[in-house]
Amino acid sequence: MFQFIDNGSVTSVQGIQAAGINCGIKKSKKDLALIYSDVPCEAAGTFTLNKVVAAPLVLSKNIIQQKKKVKAILVNSGNANACTGAEGYENALKSQSYCAEKLNVKSSEVIVSSTGVIGQQLPMEKFLKGIDTIPSMLSTCDGVDAAEAIMTTDKKKKSYAVKVQLSKGEITIGGICKGSGMIMPNMATMLAFLATDAFIEHDLLQHLIKEAVNNSFNKISVDGDTSTNDMVILLASGLSDIKINPNDQDYKIFSSALLAICQEMAKSIASDGEGATKLITISVNNARTKHDADAIARAMVNSPLFKTAMNGNDANWGRILSAAGNSGANFVPEKVSIKFDELSILQPNFKFAFCEEEARKILSKDNVTISLDLDEGQESSTWWTCDFSEEYVKINANYRT
Amino acid sequence: MFQFIDNGSVTSVQGIQAAGINCGIKKSKKDLALIYSDVPCEAAGTFTLNKVVAAPLVLSKNIIQQKKKVKAILVNSGNANACTGAEGYENALKSQSYCAEKLNVKSSEVIVSSTGVIGQQLPMEKFLKGIDTIPSMLSTCDGVDAAEAIMTTDKKKKSYAVKVQLSKGEITIGGICKGSGMIMPNMATMLAFLATDAFIEHDLLQHLIKEAVNNSFNKISVDGDTSTNDMVILLASGLSDIKINPNDQDYKIFSSALLAICQEMAKSIASDGEGATKLITISVNNARTKHDADAIARAMVNSPLFKTAMNGNDANWGRILSAAGNSGANFVPEKVSIKFDELSILQPNFKFAFCEEEARKILSKDNVTISLDLDEGQESSTWWTCDFSEEYVKINANYRT
Repeated sequence: MFQFIDNGSVTSVQGIQAAGINCGIKKSKKDLALIYSDVPCEAAGTFTLNKVVAAPLVLSKNIIQQKKKVKAILVNSGNANACTGAEGYENALKSQSYCAEKLNVKSSEVIVSSTGVIGQQLPMEKFLKGIDTIPSMLSTCDGVDAAEAIMTTDKKKKSYAVKVQLSKGEITIGGICKGSGMIMPNMATMLAFLATDAFIEHDLLQHLIKEAVNNSFNKISVDGDTSTNDMVILLASGLSDIKINPNDQDYKIFSSALLAICQEMAKSIASDGEGATKLITISVNNARTKHDADAIARAMVNSPLFKTAMNGNDANWGRILSAAGNSGANFVPEKVSIKFDELSILQPNFKFAFCEEEARKILSKDNVTISLDLDEGQESSTWWTCDFSEEYVKINANYRT
Repeated sequence: MFQFIDNGSVTSVQGIQAAGINCGIKKSKKDLALIYSDVPCEAAGTFTLNKVVAAPLVLSKNIIQQKKKVKAILVNSGNANACTGAEGYENALKSQSYCAEKLNVKSSEVIVSSTGVIGQQLPMEKFLKGIDTIPSMLSTCDGVDAAEAIMTTDKKKKSYAVKVQLSKGEITIGGICKGSGMIMPNMATMLAFLATDAFIEHDLLQHLIKEAVNNSFNKISVDGDTSTNDMVILLASGLSDIKINPNDQDYKIFSSALLAICQEMAKSIASDGEGATKLITISVNNARTKHDADAIARAMVNSPLFKTAMNGNDANWGRILSAAGNSGANFVPEKVSIKFDELSILQPNFKFAFCEEEARKILSKDNVTISLDLDEGQESSTWWTCDFSEEYVKINANYRT
């Protein structure tokens, strides 16, 4: 029903152009991205729950809440424009209206977003000069450049697209995202910008993205911190003339495709976590309630002790049980069994007889699934995280210097 | 009203003897401690809230809950006897009754406690041989040996005592503790064993230790993980013939002295956190509610981003605000001011003009206080933690190997 497109991006969606350039906020790396739609789009989104909210988020959240149509998304990296007071808010407004002027659209049609260091004012001269230049660089093949321009400590560009076969024809969902530190639900500190050419009314679009985010970006954690700047935006241009209606078969296909691309993005963020050497999938099964399953998975993805053991390829299942025990979830420790991929590590009543060498081999891979069976009920939950390495500390001890 | 005793320990309390030896659970380091009181003591304590509870805790919690009098505390390190099922429980029982036999006391007079690796059975032959030997090693000056024998990844022995002047004479409170990883309220993963020669009835003793733990051990965090084995025990022998009654002046003096020794112990644990290079005191002031003050302090002591910045001596106040914003506490970010010791780092409305070099100098010390003023009300809270270093990861990636 849907397939990922090789080297797909937000520009895989018809009518979407993008560009990514360096405007001087960073020394030489790309630091300014623009996504542009030929036609006004319905726009939906989710935003950080941090009490400290960056200036651009205030503007962009407002656009979504007022159900305005959107034609552009302007994103800078290298400076978060957070904790910057009235001046920061003015700067966000200025960049928004200046970008609107250059694109010949309304200010309310431009979503703005920033990521980078907190507490410093944007270098406005360079920033505005960048906004001057970037519209002329827009193209239908530069989605990956835009993905590069929103990176901070990310090592890999994150760019995806899926083609979706619906009963009335084909539509596309494409997007770019970033994030590798300060990753924790809700939301993971990250940015994701998606677009589709399906026709979707605002409230349904908001419902769709909220559901998808909840089962993807809100299920990853690198370090338990959420940022002041998180946002996920989904634009729907309607250019395909294919409308998504609630509760029919196409709706189900579209929402699974949207979930798939969001999960792919979320996993790419978790596996590119600062200092990460592997992607860890946590699968908690047969819990009494969904809440219990989530609580245990959340405790695991935020346990430094579990995550350092994963870094050391150490089959220390005691730390898994102990993290689960801290979660507040309802379960009987004696009933738990644990697997690493298909290898049984722990059986009920704390029985274990696995081969340490085999366990170490599984943990040494760059992609490992840790499954817990609680034997309490029927609910399950899947989360993603990475291991915790010395490199993480190195990166974050000296972020500003 | 009270003074710390130089090189004080649990054996600074009259009638208390202790010993610490190697019995072979660890290769050569001390791994078995015994604390012994000449007379039966009232015993109070607090225990881990982790759902996964180690076998010895089940026994010891029972003794406290049944208000039994206690004459001895037997502690081994190197093996937690947690997640060890029926065999582990049998082993805990066996060690308790064997120790009671050797000391010629009742089983219910012996509190047992273990710390170390989870999920492995105790080497019972060595353990029982150790229990055979250790009573003959008891002395009134070996409190520090006992402190050494309960260490796991601790770098420093932790041993304290205070002399307390009451209206009717002098009493002493002394104790030993351990803990450097898996430290998080409630409770910090740690062990603390205290004794006093004051005469205190059981319920009052339980009330006193709970209050003291709440404002000391429950306000430290190294890595946000709580263990399966945490306990704090306070014995009161009454040998001084000085009785503590509720609500008089002596009660206030005794409880401040008890809080002081518990806080000193808690700080020693936080500053000896795995890989720690400094002790960080977090002081959140002028919050609307106690709950808000605690929530912000708790978010900070558990934020890897804040703690890695502290490791790098980086005055990254944005991470402090962001951690506070994640805490769920009620406050207005614009009203917050932040100090490092006496140096103003952030003033309201995100104003800052501090000297980076000066800030770095303060953060480079081995003891720094980070204060937040929320300007919302009158409540405050103080927590303690350490920085987060590459060394922490190194220690924990390879704990079992």
